[in-house]
Amino acid sequence: MTLNVGLIGAGMIGHDHARRLERVVAGARVSAVADVDLERARDLAAGMPGALTYASGHDIIASPQVDAVVVASSGPTHEPYVLAAIAAGKPVFCEKPLAPGPDACLRIVEAEVASGRHLVQVGFMRRYDPGYQAMRQALRDGLIGAPLLAHCAHRNPSVPGTYTSDMPLTDTAVHEMDAMRWLLADEVVAVSVLLPRRNGRAPSHLADPQVLLMETATGTLVDVEINLSCAYGYDIRCELVGETGTVTLDSPAGCTLRGNGTASQAIPADWRERFGPAYDAELQVWADTVAAGHDGCAAGAATSWDGYKAAAICEAALAALDSGQRTPVVTKDRPAFYADAASPRP
Amino acid sequence: MTLNVGLIGAGMIGHDHARRLERVVAGARVSAVADVDLERARDLAAGMPGALTYASGHDIIASPQVDAVVVASSGPTHEPYVLAAIAAGKPVFCEKPLAPGPDACLRIVEAEVASGRHLVQVGFMRRYDPGYQAMRQALRDGLIGAPLLAHCAHRNPSVPGTYTSDMPLTDTAVHEMDAMRWLLADEVVAVSVLLPRRNGRAPSHLADPQVLLMETATGTLVDVEINLSCAYGYDIRCELVGETGTVTLDSPAGCTLRGNGTASQAIPADWRERFGPAYDAELQVWADTVAAGHDGCAAGAATSWDGYKAAAICEAALAALDSGQRTPVVTKDRPAFYADAASPRP
Amino acid sequence: MTLNVGLIGAGMIGHDHARRLERVVAGARVSAVADVDLERARDLAAGMPGALTYASGHDIIASPQVDAVVVASSGPTHEPYVLAAIAAGKPVFCEKPLAPGPDACLRIVEAEVASGRHLVQVGFMRRYDPGYQAMRQALRDGLIGAPLLAHCAHRNPSVPGTYTSDMPLTDTAVHEMDAMRWLLADEVVAVSVLLPRRNGRAPSHLADPQVLLMETATGTLVDVEINLSCAYGYDIRCELVGETGTVTLDSPAGCTLRGNGTASQAIPADWRERFGPAYDAELQVWADTVAAGHDGCAAGAATSWDGYKAAAICEAALAALDSGQRTPVVTKDRPAFYADAASPRP
Amino acid sequence: MTLNVGLIGAGMIGHDHARRLERVVAGARVSAVADVDLERARDLAAGMPGALTYASGHDIIASPQVDAVVVASSGPTHEPYVLAAIAAGKPVFCEKPLAPGPDACLRIVEAEVASGRHLVQVGFMRRYDPGYQAMRQALRDGLIGAPLLAHCAHRNPSVPGTYTSDMPLTDTAVHEMDAMRWLLADEVVAVSVLLPRRNGRAPSHLADPQVLLMETATGTLVDVEINLSCAYGYDIRCELVGETGTVTLDSPAGCTLRGNGTASQAIPADWRERFGPAYDAELQVWADTVAAGHDGCAAGAATSWDGYKAAAICEAALAALDSGQRTPVVTKDRPAFYADAASPRP
Repeated sequence: MTLNVGLIGAGMIGHDHARRLERVVAGARVSAVADVDLERARDLAAGMPGALTYASGHDIIASPQVDAVVVASSGPTHEPYVLAAIAAGKPVFCEKPLAPGPDACLRIVEAEVASGRHLVQVGFMRRYDPGYQAMRQALRDGLIGAPLLAHCAHRNPSVPGTYTSDMPLTDTAVHEMDAMRWLLADEVVAVSVLLPRRNGRAPSHLADPQVLLMETATGTLVDVEINLSCAYGYDIRCELVGETGTVTLDSPAGCTLRGNGTASQAIPADWRERFGPAYDAELQVWADTVAAGHDGCAAGAATSWDGYKAAAICEAALAALDSGQRTPVVTKDRPAFYADAASPRP
Repeated sequence: MTLNVGLIGAGMIGHDHARRLERVVAGARVSAVADVDLERARDLAAGMPGALTYASGHDIIASPQVDAVVVASSGPTHEPYVLAAIAAGKPVFCEKPLAPGPDACLRIVEAEVASGRHLVQVGFMRRYDPGYQAMRQALRDGLIGAPLLAHCAHRNPSVPGTYTSDMPLTDTAVHEMDAMRWLLADEVVAVSVLLPRRNGRAPSHLADPQVLLMETATGTLVDVEINLSCAYGYDIRCELVGETGTVTLDSPAGCTLRGNGTASQAIPADWRERFGPAYDAELQVWADTVAAGHDGCAAGAATSWDGYKAAAICEAALAALDSGQRTPVVTKDRPAFYADAASPRP
Repeated sequence: MTLNVGLIGAGMIGHDHARRLERVVAGARVSAVADVDLERARDLAAGMPGALTYASGHDIIASPQVDAVVVASSGPTHEPYVLAAIAAGKPVFCEKPLAPGPDACLRIVEAEVASGRHLVQVGFMRRYDPGYQAMRQALRDGLIGAPLLAHCAHRNPSVPGTYTSDMPLTDTAVHEMDAMRWLLADEVVAVSVLLPRRNGRAPSHLADPQVLLMETATGTLVDVEINLSCAYGYDIRCELVGETGTVTLDSPAGCTLRGNGTASQAIPADWRERFGPAYDAELQVWADTVAAGHDGCAAGAATSWDGYKAAAICEAALAALDSGQRTPVVTKDRPAFYADAASPRP
Repeated sequence: MTLNVGLIGAGMIGHDHARRLERVVAGARVSAVADVDLERARDLAAGMPGALTYASGHDIIASPQVDAVVVASSGPTHEPYVLAAIAAGKPVFCEKPLAPGPDACLRIVEAEVASGRHLVQVGFMRRYDPGYQAMRQALRDGLIGAPLLAHCAHRNPSVPGTYTSDMPLTDTAVHEMDAMRWLLADEVVAVSVLLPRRNGRAPSHLADPQVLLMETATGTLVDVEINLSCAYGYDIRCELVGETGTVTLDSPAGCTLRGNGTASQAIPADWRERFGPAYDAELQVWADTVAAGHDGCAAGAATSWDGYKAAAICEAALAALDSGQRTPVVTKDRPAFYADAASPRP
């Protein structure tokens, strides 16, 4: 009954997912690993009894030993692998981004619609964070009234020198783009990007911090501080402001230390520490869903359509960064095949 | 040795200051009260042994029984009273706004400079809030590095139906305009106003909430949520984000109640509850300063120049609200007589 | 209309009260200072225009320039001064302890009862702390049901080498003895003292920490950690546990600093910082009450009877420390003149 | 490679562990279920493909389809099943208590020592709670100095009418007995039980709340409020007080709701919600350890010896409840086979 998962990509995130599938997720195993660097695939597979290795992800998809696929290779390779998995009728969990731009994402959407089955889930793990889930429930339960505003911050202690000024939007704030659509059950229709005073600690070519403003169809205004050189820790903040109240994401709890004149709580060092349980839950629910045979995308998880929407918001945000202007987010109409954000698939 | 204070204006805020001067501030008393409605002045003075009453604030200023003046009358009357107090050489504490627009404020500034003495203090009481003071100290102590961003929220449970759409900026956010200049020791050079989805609970003609963006000379970007129909309480929030850390205003502490499945803390009902101790401290320090004979404006308090700056930011914000555009804040150069925000008077 | 206060005792706490009466409390001044060391009295009076100086507190009490008396001299001198003030019919605010033991306190109680007037207030300032007041209100409002347990901690960073093992009970926990009677509106009927592992940082002869257990007439059990060498700050904790909920004293709020991997809040350095506003409020309310001519003890403040009760609990606690046994608290019956804790004077 | 686990006991906790082994724990499955009520075993096994069913736990232990055993049957049956598993050389995870009294536990200890292998793990799940783990790490890292005191509270909203007055100690506080030995790395040498005012909401025959005092070999004093009718939620509190600081267990974080004049956080409804992740981690680590073939008890988990110690503390606590006296905890010397609490098995 164990789900045999083929893993494409044996890099950092591939290693992480492999470990998770083997050691954390119940009812799943890694049955095959592919990487363009075959040696790297073999190294990873060494710790997984019976796992096959390939140099091409397409061999993974074709393998009879593979029931479902996890795509953790580099962004530009996502589209062909996901399309191939759809063609093969195999469920595929694709790390974010679904594909590098909205056009590529749209091709995936169209292929999935044509297949008639929900086969694709995109790795937006915040939907599985207990804090975000509690916020969403509070909103749905009417505890704060209709949403009017949201304030977000996405802070990393530092980023590598390879980070370029588009990446705060496409690699970092992309999580808020999906999370806010999901939390608010609303669509982002326009974006702006503001550039505050640069942090002297940021890589010298990097515009950091940035502030992303997102306006939704109902007029809710979301501001996102993207701050990649904050030094002090990995800190994710979010407050939804409704007509009668607000709900705020708590920082993860552990213990409070009193010493040296202060009471203090530890802040996570990085996204692994902060969202580890959400990554675990995300893959567990996906594996359970796939094993149950119904579908390749768990209820409430990010679909191809969500991946496309995130890519379209990213594209508009990059244009806004470039022009300094408020920029509409233009997308196709949602196929009936996908539930909209306001009423996600059950 | 008691400081004899003449109070101009016997309305709500006048009553509040009278009570404070008589019953909270050490070393001061109300020696005279003026109001255009003389009956109102007499009612207020009834509880204050020996207090004279007048129908005109100018009589207060001229009275030999008055050492210093508190102006708590309606905004348009501030300018003539403050100018008269300067002319009489009497220290004057003027409730915000100093005067309705930057031009009127500038006339006060010029008169004060010409007088050669610091005689005017403006009632921006947040400078005396322990939480704001702790934030400012943290910034000055280098605990968060150079400031890059600030996030503010100014929430009232509701406002009267008489509130018009300019007042969220001129009556409400004006506190943040002064507080951020003082906290950041920086000048606001441009503003924008965004209008999110309207709160259905707001008076029908009122644009509420609003978001004010302020950019400072050094590039720090300040966002202020102005939310006057939040229903749940009076809530003032502020976070300064620096290059290596952040500092956040705590909500006032009391006790935590555990019951019915929640742990909860009370939120102040209104500004009186939230900032009562700051109002008390503000007037005490002013009375101490005046009584010491040095000056009519306490070190670190808001001067005429600060009142002028706040008025200029308000004016730009109203233009930004009207045009929907980013609007520069244009002001005169600061006279050497006033310290700048970055290096306030000792 | 200014209340002329005579101050007995020009030591540390005397200086503190003098400064408070002159510079913080509205409607009061220090009109005379006495100290056995006359030079010390003169030094203190130097900063107070018109203040007389004496070598004996009895001269203060007799002085026509003195409307009311603050006793801040050493503990053993309290009884004669308070008795003299009662005899002179002058209101007297006496620092804790009212007198060194229950017998001396009882003599004061009897003299006050005989005088037919409430002339004595004891300096238990926690009754004026907003956090404690909020807890008491929550209990009275029925928000936690009937009280069953209370957990307290009284932590000082360190104490002088002169501290002896009785003082954690008589000088430190005495505040909890009064505060818990007042909070719970209940009487302490038995006490025990436990000695945990000694803190190696404590003075070598000092039993520190100690745990005081107090049982009330209704069976509520109070535990108090008395910890005088905790190093990290001055920390006062209290939780009341009722039948349906609990209420916990919050630590004073200021700001939260995020830096170096932690979110942290400052802890007060000492009792002055923690309870400064409570000391201010206590003397202001006392001065207001006295000036109003009704009484020498504010409604809800600690009376002579409360001072006697605290002394009786101290005496029992010392016996319990000595014997290692649970020890009943034995006191006289309350004169009708005093309201009981459960129904304090309005 | 999947670990085949035989489950003894198909009651409430058995169902919970079955679900966990099948759906949460990676690398394990339930291969057999036994219950004295065979129908109940069959019902439970129905959802687990291939699981055998038996009426006797001894059949489970003997089954070649069973690699390791989970004992979740009623307390009195634990001893024979655990002894049988040891005799069979099969690892056994036994829910707390290990056995109803110290003598029975000691027989298990002796059998395990004689077997020469660590085959038994006891289900004290708090050792796997992230908050407790962070507290323990803080203590070990020297962040609070040597421990002097600990304050605990164990609060349930209510308990069934079947709860008798021994159960607050043996079924509830037993978790604190183990957790404090593990946190403090110290042994409990004496206990007392205090009975505060009874909660009127408790079942009429139940002494509730109770306060358990535990003294350790080094003199650390632990107080535990056991409160089984607190109404408001399931609340577990713990503070360790050391020579230079303290560390406090945080309540689990989710989100903070601001509404109706309060800021509030949800409190878990029951132990499942509060400790669900700890139960999950506990079984995952046990399964990993067993699958690795080294041992039947994970490093840091509770051994038979820890189960014996908890039973001995319970026995002393019951005597203390009965007598009202401080009661020593008397135990055998620790066999060299077991690490002591201060230096647990690596």
